[in-house]
Amino acid sequence: MKQITLSEVASLLSQHDDFKILTHSYPDGDCLGCGYALAFALRKLGKRANVAVDGKLPSKFTYLVKNYEEQDFTPAYIVSVDVAAPALLGESVMEGVDHIDLCIDHHGTNSLDADCKYVDDTAAAAAEIIWEILELLHVEIDEDIAAGIYTGVSTDTGCFLYTNTTPQTHRIAAQVMPYCNWQEINNINFVIKTRAKLRMERLVYKTMEFHAAGQCAIIYTTLAMCEALKSGDDEMEGLANIPRRIEGVKIGITMREKPGGVFKISVRTNDGINAAEFCRQFGGGGHPAASGCSIEGDLGTVKKILVDAAEAYLQ
Amino acid sequence: MKQITLSEVASLLSQHDDFKILTHSYPDGDCLGCGYALAFALRKLGKRANVAVDGKLPSKFTYLVKNYEEQDFTPAYIVSVDVAAPALLGESVMEGVDHIDLCIDHHGTNSLDADCKYVDDTAAAAAEIIWEILELLHVEIDEDIAAGIYTGVSTDTGCFLYTNTTPQTHRIAAQVMPYCNWQEINNINFVIKTRAKLRMERLVYKTMEFHAAGQCAIIYTTLAMCEALKSGDDEMEGLANIPRRIEGVKIGITMREKPGGVFKISVRTNDGINAAEFCRQFGGGGHPAASGCSIEGDLGTVKKILVDAAEAYLQ
Ligand SMILES: [Mn+2]
Ligand SMILES: [Mn+2]
Repeated sequence: MKQITLSEVASLLSQHDDFKILTHSYPDGDCLGCGYALAFALRKLGKRANVAVDGKLPSKFTYLVKNYEEQDFTPAYIVSVDVAAPALLGESVMEGVDHIDLCIDHHGTNSLDADCKYVDDTAAAAAEIIWEILELLHVEIDEDIAAGIYTGVSTDTGCFLYTNTTPQTHRIAAQVMPYCNWQEINNINFVIKTRAKLRMERLVYKTMEFHAAGQCAIIYTTLAMCEALKSGDDEMEGLANIPRRIEGVKIGITMREKPGGVFKISVRTNDGINAAEFCRQFGGGGHPAASGCSIEGDLGTVKKILVDAAEAYLQ
Repeated sequence: MKQITLSEVASLLSQHDDFKILTHSYPDGDCLGCGYALAFALRKLGKRANVAVDGKLPSKFTYLVKNYEEQDFTPAYIVSVDVAAPALLGESVMEGVDHIDLCIDHHGTNSLDADCKYVDDTAAAAAEIIWEILELLHVEIDEDIAAGIYTGVSTDTGCFLYTNTTPQTHRIAAQVMPYCNWQEINNINFVIKTRAKLRMERLVYKTMEFHAAGQCAIIYTTLAMCEALKSGDDEMEGLANIPRRIEGVKIGITMREKPGGVFKISVRTNDGINAAEFCRQFGGGGHPAASGCSIEGDLGTVKKILVDAAEAYLQ
């Protein structure tokens, strides 16, 4: 495993051909945006390139592939984009892959095994790195490439809202916007809400409780709620951010019942409260402001455990 | 009234002294950001400058004035920022003002009476224009100026989400971010929600009805609801965007009961439906995707009028 520079990444890409680009499971806007932008760019350079996606492409991202068709060739050079860990590579993505030649990522914790690695954790999105590579390769930007890059930088920053956003994120957005329908991309990713999602949110708001003088807010979903609404992962997206957005809340907890008598817990914090430390009490972990853990038990028991822990932690 | 160029604006500002900067009533992030950024900049150039705000500065914007103190002088040059029409100038703002020397704005419909006018309706926020002026004046940027400019460009674009955003909006954000606590500004303006606001939203969601096969969504607030929640204008902010954000909705209508048996109606549209034309049926108007009108009557009657009109309009 060799850490390489950005210009070495560009050299490797221009020296090779017949690319397979690996994205992570539960694909998000960043890995997909990176994958397709890089594939379209490599094709423009006269190379062959395909993107491997685990399962079905989420329907909201179909705008990324309107000019994409799978090419028929045997992959000779394997590149991963935005994939932080081996466990995030789905089985179908790894079909016929015995090693990764090049790993491009922005997760500081990257633990992938690859011949060459370029990890820049100052990039808000892996798409920022891809954009810089395309500049080094003098690829002429077009709508497909721009849509991929804009999707990556905007979705990984919550539309330039999150604290990982940097001046560079904005500069890249400024450069790609003239080439793509970013208004429609924003609409799809940040504006429009399905009625199913709306119903789930309304139900979840009903479960909200405040504790520790309003400094802890807790919400939950149960299997029964999901079944009643016929809700899946799409409707769960973003729920974990709800409690911590309320004024005065320092620890926002979201409990999601999973089959087998276990709750998946998401913890989001404000004001420097350490979510990772909080979750470590229950064998979990993550980032300082966004962490998770799992706790076995029924709804009332698990909720009491969490509320008691939050009250103790906030003292 | 004379239309002038941006460099003429810069000349006028450098030639004059003792500025009073006028902002509009119900002050928003853009007019306040412009006002304070310009005042701090003029003070850096050795001039005196005050900002006139109608009523109390909304508490969420106090971060703009942490280094601001009113200066004591008789104004000699009056500049308005982000003020589109005479009716938007509050009485207290106009105290001692008999004319406006310079109007700086980004509303294409600007109808203010001023000796000199600079209106650029391609600017997403008036703060973009102020930034360009400060560059011409070679003002050295500091935290106060950066906070004002960032507040203006971010709030008028919904954090770089709305379709009025341009590459220039992003470029300006990239330039000012290193100088201010934009993370905290985003938190205040886009992330944190008061519990009062949350209660109002939950109540409003309960009123939501769908008509015209889901293409029309309508919500309302009544005086009784506002009284029960002790809600004011702060809690009403943003409600009008709720219905049009739901998948499939083309006409989103928000009805707000006002004293005297009248409802204030906000109409937001998707997919090219003309909200201004829709509202003109009721003596209102506005922008193609965001318009308003007033209708007298009780809740049921007004709602039926609007739903019938929407169903007819969508056919
Ligand atoms: Mn990413
Ligand atoms: Mn404005």
